[in-house]
Amino acid sequence: MLVVKKFGGTSVADKDRIFNVANRCIEDYKKGSQVVVVLSAMGKQTDVLIDMAKDINPKAARRELDMLLTTGEQTSVALMAMAINALGYPAISMNAFQVAMHTTADYGGARIKRIDTDRIKNELDNRRIVVITGFQGINKYDDYTTLGRGGSDTTAVALAAALHADACEIYTDVDGVFTADPRIVPKARKLNEITYDEMLELASLGAGVLHNRSVEMAKKYGVQLVVRSSLNTSEGTVVKEESNMEKMLVSGVAADKNVVQIAVENLPNKPGVAFKLFHHLANHNVNVDMIIQSVEHDSTQDICFTVTEDMAETAIETLKRHSNSSLKGSHVTVTRDVAKVSVVGAGMMSNAGVAAKMFEALYDAGVNILQISTSEIRVTVLIERKYTETAAQAVHDAFSLDD
Amino acid sequence: MLVVKKFGGTSVADKDRIFNVANRCIEDYKKGSQVVVVLSAMGKQTDVLIDMAKDINPKAARRELDMLLTTGEQTSVALMAMAINALGYPAISMNAFQVAMHTTADYGGARIKRIDTDRIKNELDNRRIVVITGFQGINKYDDYTTLGRGGSDTTAVALAAALHADACEIYTDVDGVFTADPRIVPKARKLNEITYDEMLELASLGAGVLHNRSVEMAKKYGVQLVVRSSLNTSEGTVVKEESNMEKMLVSGVAADKNVVQIAVENLPNKPGVAFKLFHHLANHNVNVDMIIQSVEHDSTQDICFTVTEDMAETAIETLKRHSNSSLKGSHVTVTRDVAKVSVVGAGMMSNAGVAAKMFEALYDAGVNILQISTSEIRVTVLIERKYTETAAQAVHDAFSLDD
Repeated sequence: MLVVKKFGGTSVADKDRIFNVANRCIEDYKKGSQVVVVLSAMGKQTDVLIDMAKDINPKAARRELDMLLTTGEQTSVALMAMAINALGYPAISMNAFQVAMHTTADYGGARIKRIDTDRIKNELDNRRIVVITGFQGINKYDDYTTLGRGGSDTTAVALAAALHADACEIYTDVDGVFTADPRIVPKARKLNEITYDEMLELASLGAGVLHNRSVEMAKKYGVQLVVRSSLNTSEGTVVKEESNMEKMLVSGVAADKNVVQIAVENLPNKPGVAFKLFHHLANHNVNVDMIIQSVEHDSTQDICFTVTEDMAETAIETLKRHSNSSLKGSHVTVTRDVAKVSVVGAGMMSNAGVAAKMFEALYDAGVNILQISTSEIRVTVLIERKYTETAAQAVHDAFSLDD
Repeated sequence: MLVVKKFGGTSVADKDRIFNVANRCIEDYKKGSQVVVVLSAMGKQTDVLIDMAKDINPKAARRELDMLLTTGEQTSVALMAMAINALGYPAISMNAFQVAMHTTADYGGARIKRIDTDRIKNELDNRRIVVITGFQGINKYDDYTTLGRGGSDTTAVALAAALHADACEIYTDVDGVFTADPRIVPKARKLNEITYDEMLELASLGAGVLHNRSVEMAKKYGVQLVVRSSLNTSEGTVVKEESNMEKMLVSGVAADKNVVQIAVENLPNKPGVAFKLFHHLANHNVNVDMIIQSVEHDSTQDICFTVTEDMAETAIETLKRHSNSSLKGSHVTVTRDVAKVSVVGAGMMSNAGVAAKMFEALYDAGVNILQISTSEIRVTVLIERKYTETAAQAVHDAFSLDD
């Protein structure tokens, strides 16, 4: 049995928590398992380092920022190996060079290309617990890279795939994946199982337990994930290809308040306008979601979409700048107090009634729908932000998710 | 012109000092020089990391301690590259892996074996200032090692040798090498030049500006060193093979209060006793200095030597433990309030009168001599510690070193 266990920064924030993680790893080791541990930087250390860099150079080169940030995980793994040793068990720490963890050249947002597993396997065969830096890699220039958001989860999944691990456990500060955010829907229930696709939809919709990249990689390489708490021993949620149970119609409800709706009205109704609009936004790294294009009236059309709040200003300025040129005559309307509520479930692919049932529940709860977007396994509605909790609760009840 | 510049932890302790060093490097760069900068960890960062490790595991493995400590210099070099960039000049940071800086396998006290200079040369040819981590290396297992005390100076000298640098500048918080410690001898004068051998004697006697290892390596590879201040632009002291000036009879006076005298009396007067005594001490990593063996009387002999204060307890316990076995019958007398005062000068090799002149000066000053030790270019006396300043001043005056 080879197990990869990943712990985030909160789980190694101080001495007590480091020893807690060390003990979790030793438990598996004592059962005879080969144990690989992937760690993030301690607590808020990455933020501290970023602040140090900004103080020196607000426009610091990403290459040098990565050189700085990678010290964070290296500190974690060295201390963890010392803690495991202090408890009487053999351990060795390894950084991205020692692994080696080959990535693309993109500093700050690299993607893993290849992992050399020889040394890890040797150390495991020598019955050592191997403690590896998450979030970091090296590129073809022998420079450090970092993987960007969700990086340590991705490191763990990539290692599990490369080592053909029997299990990949992602430890967080919650018990697993829930049918909804318990802060919004108090009766939300922990799921025992969920499919990769459902997890992907939930992750991108703000459920936030796992980053999309790590789930995508797990799906691609068939790595079965377990999301579980570092604070207790409850079973967690298994993320895998197919649920053993009969497919649930709906697995969960996601709510996301980090949304701004932008409507671009009076656009010229000719080919290429939508392309130009989203091309301008992409050039400024604005990710858009929930796009709808109105049916044409006369010679103009309207396009409506949502962005996250931190991207709203950039999006609005970009659109206004082009309203006299390629988007001539258009004007921009912004609605800020909105939220997205979604139902996600692999079972809805073969069941047409999900959207209707959701809309009915919202109607009964007095929640007006501003915009609708769907995928094969998801229905999302845009609503007024003040109704987020009401809507999430109503939909959760309608699909009996608290059973 | 290729110049290697080394700055210690104090010189990069905060933002202002980092920019001060960045400007010093840019000055050379603007004159057309190729600039390599070697840095230690910021301020007391190494001590902070050691304390973190001790808190987790007081007996932390040296391999893991090195993994932890090497984050210190990596932080310094990344921030320095950012600072140089912020001032509008190109720079790139490199750690021991990127260089690569090959060392022996000894964690915590590795010795440099070989330096790959290809990438450094490429970066220099691309007109970048290259900022390199001091103190650290990698061994044959691809593990980090640290070089022990004086490590960053040694890194700088090794790089200067490998790159055939035109200059190797070691920056400190004093203006250079002095004829004596100005805190002890107020009229002490900065030396413009000094030989490697003189520097070696002064370093080992507590002058403390350069560590012996770096001077030894500089001598071996003929790297001319300049010791100068990071706080002003004064010329500093050149350390080289031969002084251009006529050899000075005496270059400097060194005083060292970190001394304890240990006398082992009543030792059996038979072959192998001295070997056993110092063998026991070496096994406990006790470095001894100023050994004298008494003329035998009857069937016993006495052996007397000095150690540093932190080694005194270990030495005394070791000797007492063996006083019933291989050192049977011996007893140990300890004198704590002693100090070493030395004169050093390459010129004394060809001049017999130095020791006599020194002893006369001490006699005139009323300082009693407890023990004497000499090398080709040094005379050292052990005296009562309370006379350290009086003795150093008297000897400094006797050789007119303030002229």
